[in-house]
Amino acid sequence: MKAIAVRDGETTPVVVDKPIPEPQAGEALVRTLRVGVDGTDHEVMSGGHGGFPEGEDHLVLGHEAVGVVEDPNGTDLREGEVVVPTVRRPPNGTNDYFERGEADMAPAGEYHERGIVGAHGFMAEYFTSPAEDLVRIPPSQAEIGFLVEPVSITEKAIELAEASRSTFTWDPESAMVLGNGSLGLLTLAMLDEDEDYERLYCLGRRDRPDPTVDIIEELGATYVDSRKTPVDEVPDVHEAIDFIYEATGFPKHVFQSVHALAPNGVAALLGVPSSWEFEVDGGSFHEEMVLHNKAMVGSVNSNVRHFEAASRTLTTLPEWFLDDLVTGVYGLDEFERAFEDGDTIIKTAVQFSEYEER
Amino acid sequence: MKAIAVRDGETTPVVVDKPIPEPQAGEALVRTLRVGVDGTDHEVMSGGHGGFPEGEDHLVLGHEAVGVVEDPNGTDLREGEVVVPTVRRPPNGTNDYFERGEADMAPAGEYHERGIVGAHGFMAEYFTSPAEDLVRIPPSQAEIGFLVEPVSITEKAIELAEASRSTFTWDPESAMVLGNGSLGLLTLAMLDEDEDYERLYCLGRRDRPDPTVDIIEELGATYVDSRKTPVDEVPDVHEAIDFIYEATGFPKHVFQSVHALAPNGVAALLGVPSSWEFEVDGGSFHEEMVLHNKAMVGSVNSNVRHFEAASRTLTTLPEWFLDDLVTGVYGLDEFERAFEDGDTIIKTAVQFSEYEER
Repeated sequence: MKAIAVRDGETTPVVVDKPIPEPQAGEALVRTLRVGVDGTDHEVMSGGHGGFPEGEDHLVLGHEAVGVVEDPNGTDLREGEVVVPTVRRPPNGTNDYFERGEADMAPAGEYHERGIVGAHGFMAEYFTSPAEDLVRIPPSQAEIGFLVEPVSITEKAIELAEASRSTFTWDPESAMVLGNGSLGLLTLAMLDEDEDYERLYCLGRRDRPDPTVDIIEELGATYVDSRKTPVDEVPDVHEAIDFIYEATGFPKHVFQSVHALAPNGVAALLGVPSSWEFEVDGGSFHEEMVLHNKAMVGSVNSNVRHFEAASRTLTTLPEWFLDDLVTGVYGLDEFERAFEDGDTIIKTAVQFSEYEER
Repeated sequence: MKAIAVRDGETTPVVVDKPIPEPQAGEALVRTLRVGVDGTDHEVMSGGHGGFPEGEDHLVLGHEAVGVVEDPNGTDLREGEVVVPTVRRPPNGTNDYFERGEADMAPAGEYHERGIVGAHGFMAEYFTSPAEDLVRIPPSQAEIGFLVEPVSITEKAIELAEASRSTFTWDPESAMVLGNGSLGLLTLAMLDEDEDYERLYCLGRRDRPDPTVDIIEELGATYVDSRKTPVDEVPDVHEAIDFIYEATGFPKHVFQSVHALAPNGVAALLGVPSSWEFEVDGGSFHEEMVLHNKAMVGSVNSNVRHFEAASRTLTTLPEWFLDDLVTGVYGLDEFERAFEDGDTIIKTAVQFSEYEER
């Protein structure tokens, strides 16, 4: 079968030939439909995340997959069911985090991430997975099922953020997404469906005309150009924000966010930057956190519960939004296009096979 | 009656004569037993917090009070009941936060704090208060009831911290209190009674012999001298910490705490510093928050629920601890001693009258 991988020492993906994997006990064989591409894939390719599978000179990419059960192999799945795989797998046998279904809370070293670190991903014509790591979704989501994984990331982050505000009456009305990439836009659309939020903002640094700005405004949200309005000036220009979702990986936003938050607000941090020293007003940061009961929650990965919620959420997002968000789905013959970057590209996927209703 | 106040333009407290206040409808008259002194009082005296009551040239100090109902004035309190007043009051009429019993979540401008900002405190022979802001405590706590307020501060902070970890299985084993002042020590003793925590640490910067270090070690906790072991080196020297309670107001601790936290850990921030710019590795801060699902929650003030919890908690703290913590209780004739600072002084209070069991 064909797979898309990055080879040791290289930074662009190539098609490689591999044998169709054989499911072990408890695993099913899945025929891949589509696999999404996101910023993490680009970091993996550039060597920013690390770790090829043991003994391998290449890593099959892809962690946002949707497929069809080809061979249930004695598991409780059925042939033809549409499934989405979770991303983390235990590195050696299992551990407590995986046993209780909370692999997303495992610390570094206690997990592999398929397509990211230590384990091959899903960008192949077939993949195997333990049945318990395959989340059934409706056949109607066969085409957009590769969005379940990114949506699940936000499901978890919102769950954590809301929990941090659960000891008192919290009636958020405004939310701001930092970042107009595909995860930012998906999150904005999710918040738009959440009846809590009456006013939405999305931060970017693009000139109009721009398709992401169009989506932001079509969703009824306000586009905030960070070149004109830095995050910490949002309260002056617009309003203080109850919930901030950081999806840029730009660490200065974290410190600015404290001043953009309304009293009792919370910021969910999602981006993954690396070391960068700069000056901050640490005293004011600290003071604002305390005097206005503010919170910050970091969030990474997601578990089966969040995947299930994500599939339900996807059914609520407007069709036009999904159409506009997914700017390209490419077959193996032109898979390179799915990895291209550009101002008119938002979300792409590689298609490995077509879904056929039985 | 006599009251202890700070006058406009002055920074040391004096005894002033004031009329015994008359309770309005819904208010009770309370005869004051004891009022504790803490760091906030010193900040108020030095002008760090601000705001005298409207039209007044002085502020009666004190926000950690215990008293006896002298005149229930038609409220559902009874004469002779031992009560502790909450601190916040609505500035004009009332507002949503007060109406739902969450004055602790009110933003700046939406509250006065008795003895701190905008309203006279409790350091007087008598004070009045709406009955709903008076929390009944057992007569056995008449002497230590001035500790209910500081303990309630920690009740709220722990509640917020735990809520932020409530969406997954969180089994904390280690906790570290930053600060060996009276609030830090009270919190350490509370955590020692919490069976979740098997290993406790308390950070200070004092040389032995020191009474706070003695208390820390008597509680079975490890004293961490921040001059030898900065907060971010605690994982190397001791272990990564599941729960950090910041009670120093030293903002560099906030940024160091991220690196001291264990995966999925949480830091509660309590101290109130002012503006201070310094360099941080903001990238690593951000990365650690995200990749290990860490959280930070700011917490200020507390409400009736936390006062009630605090009174219950006080019954669990060992008698030797309370004896060692309270290093001095002084009558009006020597009230200045309650405001002295020194290495052998931990927690002090001013006594206004004696409790007599009926």
